[in-house]
Amino acid sequence: MNTHKIQFHPYQKKITVQDGANLIRAALEAGVHINASCGGEGVCGKCRVIIEKGKVAGGISEKLSRQDIDEGVRQACKATVKSDLVVRVPVESDIDSSILNLQSTPRKTARIQEMNLDELKEKGLFVPPVEKIYLELPQPSVQDNLPDITRLISSLKLNHDEHRLVVDLSVIRKIPEVLRKNAFKVTATLARPVREVGGQTRIINVQPGDTTDRNYAVAMDVGTTTLYGQLIDLKTGIALAQYGQFNGQISYGEDVISRIIYAEKPNGLEKLHQVVIESINKIIKKIIQRSKIDPDEISTITLAGNTTMTQLLLKINPNSIRRSPYVPAATLYPPIKASELGIALGDHVAALVYPAVSSYVGGDIVAGVMGSGMYRTEELTLFMDIGTNAEIVIGNKDWLACAACSAGPAFEGGGITFGMRATKGAIEDFSIDPHTLEPMNITIGNVTPKGICGSGLIIIVATLFELGVINHAGKFNRDLNTQRIRQTEGIWEYVLAWKNETQIQRDVVLTEPDIDNLIRAKGALYSGCMTMLEAVGLRIQDVDRIFLAGGFGSYVDLEKAITIGLLPEIDTDKVVFIGNGSLMGAKMSSLTNRIRKDVVEVTKKMTNFELSETPSYMDNYVAALFLPHTDLEHFPKLKSRLDALKHTV
Amino acid sequence: MNTHKIQFHPYQKKITVQDGANLIRAALEAGVHINASCGGEGVCGKCRVIIEKGKVAGGISEKLSRQDIDEGVRQACKATVKSDLVVRVPVESDIDSSILNLQSTPRKTARIQEMNLDELKEKGLFVPPVEKIYLELPQPSVQDNLPDITRLISSLKLNHDEHRLVVDLSVIRKIPEVLRKNAFKVTATLARPVREVGGQTRIINVQPGDTTDRNYAVAMDVGTTTLYGQLIDLKTGIALAQYGQFNGQISYGEDVISRIIYAEKPNGLEKLHQVVIESINKIIKKIIQRSKIDPDEISTITLAGNTTMTQLLLKINPNSIRRSPYVPAATLYPPIKASELGIALGDHVAALVYPAVSSYVGGDIVAGVMGSGMYRTEELTLFMDIGTNAEIVIGNKDWLACAACSAGPAFEGGGITFGMRATKGAIEDFSIDPHTLEPMNITIGNVTPKGICGSGLIIIVATLFELGVINHAGKFNRDLNTQRIRQTEGIWEYVLAWKNETQIQRDVVLTEPDIDNLIRAKGALYSGCMTMLEAVGLRIQDVDRIFLAGGFGSYVDLEKAITIGLLPEIDTDKVVFIGNGSLMGAKMSSLTNRIRKDVVEVTKKMTNFELSETPSYMDNYVAALFLPHTDLEHFPKLKSRLDALKHTV
Repeated sequence: MNTHKIQFHPYQKKITVQDGANLIRAALEAGVHINASCGGEGVCGKCRVIIEKGKVAGGISEKLSRQDIDEGVRQACKATVKSDLVVRVPVESDIDSSILNLQSTPRKTARIQEMNLDELKEKGLFVPPVEKIYLELPQPSVQDNLPDITRLISSLKLNHDEHRLVVDLSVIRKIPEVLRKNAFKVTATLARPVREVGGQTRIINVQPGDTTDRNYAVAMDVGTTTLYGQLIDLKTGIALAQYGQFNGQISYGEDVISRIIYAEKPNGLEKLHQVVIESINKIIKKIIQRSKIDPDEISTITLAGNTTMTQLLLKINPNSIRRSPYVPAATLYPPIKASELGIALGDHVAALVYPAVSSYVGGDIVAGVMGSGMYRTEELTLFMDIGTNAEIVIGNKDWLACAACSAGPAFEGGGITFGMRATKGAIEDFSIDPHTLEPMNITIGNVTPKGICGSGLIIIVATLFELGVINHAGKFNRDLNTQRIRQTEGIWEYVLAWKNETQIQRDVVLTEPDIDNLIRAKGALYSGCMTMLEAVGLRIQDVDRIFLAGGFGSYVDLEKAITIGLLPEIDTDKVVFIGNGSLMGAKMSSLTNRIRKDVVEVTKKMTNFELSETPSYMDNYVAALFLPHTDLEHFPKLKSRLDALKHTV
Repeated sequence: MNTHKIQFHPYQKKITVQDGANLIRAALEAGVHINASCGGEGVCGKCRVIIEKGKVAGGISEKLSRQDIDEGVRQACKATVKSDLVVRVPVESDIDSSILNLQSTPRKTARIQEMNLDELKEKGLFVPPVEKIYLELPQPSVQDNLPDITRLISSLKLNHDEHRLVVDLSVIRKIPEVLRKNAFKVTATLARPVREVGGQTRIINVQPGDTTDRNYAVAMDVGTTTLYGQLIDLKTGIALAQYGQFNGQISYGEDVISRIIYAEKPNGLEKLHQVVIESINKIIKKIIQRSKIDPDEISTITLAGNTTMTQLLLKINPNSIRRSPYVPAATLYPPIKASELGIALGDHVAALVYPAVSSYVGGDIVAGVMGSGMYRTEELTLFMDIGTNAEIVIGNKDWLACAACSAGPAFEGGGITFGMRATKGAIEDFSIDPHTLEPMNITIGNVTPKGICGSGLIIIVATLFELGVINHAGKFNRDLNTQRIRQTEGIWEYVLAWKNETQIQRDVVLTEPDIDNLIRAKGALYSGCMTMLEAVGLRIQDVDRIFLAGGFGSYVDLEKAITIGLLPEIDTDKVVFIGNGSLMGAKMSSLTNRIRKDVVEVTKKMTNFELSETPSYMDNYVAALFLPHTDLEHFPKLKSRLDALKHTV
């Protein structure tokens, strides 16, 4: 695809974008503010820009006069870039361009790291937990009338050096017909043991003929809110299809605690179990359709979820998880037939479920640790999984400490007046005119705003803080001359969008209690890291690398996250987004059997911190209840940037 | 109980019986003939005897005149012995008492051997495959919030030296509630591995409080015709209850071949599987009721059956069993959850299924070999299990050979004109007046005859042969002067009971084709033994011991069985009846885990002979198609007895 260069005046900012990029998003990415209230739907008409050079498509509506159009005026939110451009952004007064350039850093999201299949292959670790072997057995005669299974096992021993074999009853049930269907030429599916030495290989399936080139796995992240499944070709290691689906349990409670409470009702556990299995089956159906494979050729499924999701999946009553001293029923789960759980896969398929560490550091986090590879590197890594719950792991190949943070759901929009999930109509990007304090709202789907998603919230609060609209303690500057900052029923708020510019016929606002909630959430995460680091005698500056996991992480503007003190101040290049760590780990388990042995060691190695029971945690937490932190010395670069801004404004 | 001595005149025979014994049965047991057609119901009035001394109860009916009664005449079939007696049997002519004494040997059945629990205990082998351990676990705190399962396992490791533990999902599901029900005082049920070294012990159940004194097992013989179950107390080793029940599959075919054919129909396999499970569940319900135990305290079930019954039980299609080269799907079966098979026992109960040797030497025979202990003694043992099918095992602790005989169902009354199962109305004992050829029929239940059961058939044929009524080839002596031997539609027969003396308003007869069928059946068994012995270079005379298994065996008159050549001529004291060998083996497995390791070795050691494919078998078979055999030198004692009889008669 072509790329185009855009130069914004009077800002001295440039950016290179793909052909067809949206102009207002390009501006925001370049750190250029353009007033825009309607989220990008084109109804407020505020985002007028003048195309001084080059060509855009669209951007013309009844909001513009003939003369406007002739002069090159376009609505940035509706214009797409078709060539190199010079764009002039009208500013409402003559302001120093230094202000313009300081007011926003270019948006920077984390580098995305995916699983390295080639590395696995190079290291000889691409050994899936299920393998198919094709056999041509001698046909029985009166002189050689071994039982069918014995015939199969003899050939595996003799010709393939397979030993310590055990057989599933389902295989015994199938084998007479399968052998006789294709002249005793069969493919046996072998499930490898966790322990290479002393473990038993299980014959889980037999099929007529040679099916060795059709062998698939399902990897699944069982999230509190959303489930994601992947269909993986075990011949190549490649994911053929992926699908996400809300967890059907949402109707019974948004978070794990309310699910646990529901599970305590009569038949509640059965219901929640059944509902999550239905969600899993929907995903399996979808990824089978999309990849166009024969479902009978799926040999294994690996699932990862937090401890509550795992217990509900396995129909284990989770009630002791939510009560001190927070004891899960188990953290290691035996392999179980997928069909026994109600999962719509063949009788031969064992469901492997990721082990957990504790009640609040579950298999999803362990899967992330495995998938990211942090457990086998030297670098001191901080792993943060921010979802409906937030968990932290710190460590490297020598030690690992983990904790769940009572961060609350602010990062997913929970507890925020106009908070919402990252779906259509959520303000996900934001800028502000430092002079007029008029906003630039960009919503998901470029529609009029409905609310604010988690990554949007971080950007809004950080931006307002950088310009002094809110202070260190998260309070609005009461002296600013704008209608957008006001007090409603005693609560101070900033109006992001007036009601006629929204989908909901109400002013969309950010309130001081919202900011408090965000500060508490980021404070919990940050102080969790601090507490664990102190416990092992390290400082936050020693962190070599940050892995962000969870859907949230891919949209977070890293500089803004540092600005509010959600992330420690490190080189943003060291922040890596691994996406869905749980799914990544589940996939990894499908590709390399080695990890199944390692994972038990890793869970044993992971020291769990019950932060609420750790005395220093409260001190760290209180210190983190500021923007970015009580102690700005932890954020030297931010400090100097804020100082510079202060002098300019 | 009191015993009484009876002296029979003019026979010079005595017998000691229990107080209350039936007089006609006492006579027959002593080898004394008394005419009797009606089976012992008292309607034919033929069995008149004179009580010369002593006291009987009953034996008086309208068949006797006042004078008869005053003279001490009684109907033997209705009289019970109440003191020492001198009894005179009227004989229709003056015959030499030597004839009387030669005409019948006293009935002798095999010594019964039961399992020796004390020996097991003495040898330290009373180690059931499931064990309960009571634990008082430390209660969790914030400082010690191990998962419930980890807490349990730690205690088992630390305080009971249990290692290599694995856990069932069902235990994880139960443990949170169970631990908290009784202050973390629990009983864990452990299932032991087959291999003592390297095997994994499985935690299959947890229960609140101390339940170690309540631990039970079910042992079950899954027969083609009948199922027998025992409920065993694993604390003491004692069977608390036993119950038998027809196999519900009988409606779908009498023998294994017809069951296999039914299983080939659409849904046939599912149906037969379901029906046998229903029969099993009925038995379990009954033995639970009878023993008054809590069904949740049953920890294990062991089942033994022939290969077809086992495959139907496990829902494995048996169709290749009935077709050459007679290949079963498997002969070793993995442990499987009883509940998965539909067996109405707790989720934690594993069903252990006895392994087989081949398509026609199944787990029932292996169980018999294990239960009888023949696999661990020096003596050369011949094991015969005679049921709907007949199987032979020959060998000792060093070697074992086995075969199934196509004996047909004659021993169970099959293929015999008036053949029937050993139920009420079946002639089970018989004698004949050597002079008049009038019969003495004794039926099961002392009612008028309906037919002939297997053991009765052997006695009838042997008795007729001894007296020359039928010859070496099984043909009636056409020259005898009696209405009872006649030709009907070209077939020669002996009338056992005239129709007015029967329940069925038809003459009950024994035909030459019936005798042929019996000869073929016993010939198949005998020649099977011969063929196997020849293959290992031994003679029938080398046999030290015969074990008879199967319900049939307990009633067989051993001398008569030798007379027809069913058994080789050995000291009858060496013949031991072990009853239901399959059930005995299943019980043994419930009591000693050691046997589960041994059994796999034993099945590997058992050399299977496909007799129909062994050339010498046909020669041996043809030679055995005589009474007792072509070569009377195999039966020296019988030969001299027959010679003596010939001279006398």
